[in-house]
Amino acid sequence: MDNSAVILASGGMDSLTAAHVAKDRGYDLYFLHTSYGQQTQSTERECAKQQAEQLGAVDFCEMTMDHLHEIGGSSLTDSGVSVDEADLDSNEVPQSYVPFRNGNLMAMAASYAEVNDCDSIFIGAHSEDFSGYPDCRPQFFDAFQDVVNVGTKGSTKISIQAPFSKWSKTEIVELGVQIGVSYESSWSCYRERETACGTCDACAYRLQAFQNCGVTDPIDYQERPDYTDS
Amino acid sequence: MDNSAVILASGGMDSLTAAHVAKDRGYDLYFLHTSYGQQTQSTERECAKQQAEQLGAVDFCEMTMDHLHEIGGSSLTDSGVSVDEADLDSNEVPQSYVPFRNGNLMAMAASYAEVNDCDSIFIGAHSEDFSGYPDCRPQFFDAFQDVVNVGTKGSTKISIQAPFSKWSKTEIVELGVQIGVSYESSWSCYRERETACGTCDACAYRLQAFQNCGVTDPIDYQERPDYTDS
Repeated sequence: MDNSAVILASGGMDSLTAAHVAKDRGYDLYFLHTSYGQQTQSTERECAKQQAEQLGAVDFCEMTMDHLHEIGGSSLTDSGVSVDEADLDSNEVPQSYVPFRNGNLMAMAASYAEVNDCDSIFIGAHSEDFSGYPDCRPQFFDAFQDVVNVGTKGSTKISIQAPFSKWSKTEIVELGVQIGVSYESSWSCYRERETACGTCDACAYRLQAFQNCGVTDPIDYQERPDYTDS
Repeated sequence: MDNSAVILASGGMDSLTAAHVAKDRGYDLYFLHTSYGQQTQSTERECAKQQAEQLGAVDFCEMTMDHLHEIGGSSLTDSGVSVDEADLDSNEVPQSYVPFRNGNLMAMAASYAEVNDCDSIFIGAHSEDFSGYPDCRPQFFDAFQDVVNVGTKGSTKISIQAPFSKWSKTEIVELGVQIGVSYESSWSCYRERETACGTCDACAYRLQAFQNCGVTDPIDYQERPDYTDS
């Protein structure tokens, strides 16, 4: 039987690159796209669907995490909290942090993987995520691997793969350009507008990665400040 | 500041007893009730709400796990899979197993606890659950404690408390009767009828626990077979 992998596909560029890596390794792809009441959910969903089609995914599953919207407490899900302008040097947990979001995502992915006999879960988290998000760190994925091992049926073997967990976003773009990832069909901006703003945290990190590689990000922006590492 | 605890309240008798234990230990209670498309969800929800009122809970939060319904694969959530008659001696993972359900529940509880600064999560899982459900075992809760420690903000300290994880259901009823738990407001049956069936796995284990204690279960049943340990 072929290997098959759940891809946690946000619609963004990191998970798109992770999906390409899984495809290149010979996995059949089970796309799992989740919305959690974030302001940009319809745009992200469209991108994830396009990505699944382009990569010939076996299945595309959409799940809601509306409960995280009910809890509130994050600028991405709580309309009472505004989206900050980027501050790439901050060490604080950012306002966009959804409490334990990856814990919820990984649990959903484990259920989906177990039902479909998938042997892997790919997630595109990288080392610059965990400067702010505690549930993006390699230790978190290691701990979750243990939880999945003891919390699923004896016959279930699911490997959690976070291939970029020690990479920078710049390294992800370098690889992606090399293996031919179509970044047109990905969305990163935290603000819901026709064109990415270019100034929120997510845009700033994305633009910085492309600029560091000397490659033009193929999507449109309202503005493209220079974020290259000085 | 008072201690506060999230109670994973299914509407059943184990979590109701756990809520009483938390209350007796001085915690303010944050009830978290989840539905996941199971056949009996409206009855369970009503019970959980009654329990929260009776115990003076500070908050009652309802969350859906509809995504587990979309996945299917369990008799509780998939209408194509029928509910088995009880077989208390089986060592197989039962058809009612929702893949990694407690992984999802614990992740939601951790998010809810982190937003509300709760320092504990109580879950009523007991030793007879894990004969069939891998995500009810003490090892699972230990592993999830590690995940919560590394996956939440540095200032967040959440203790996972499964006070009955090494107890039998009979011992839960013994304690519950002693501390005055009102089992009228709890529902266990897997089948959606006005009166509990008395013959599904959930009814059988519940009736057996009461019968072992020599106490009459205060709820109505269509039939009450004798399940006492021989």
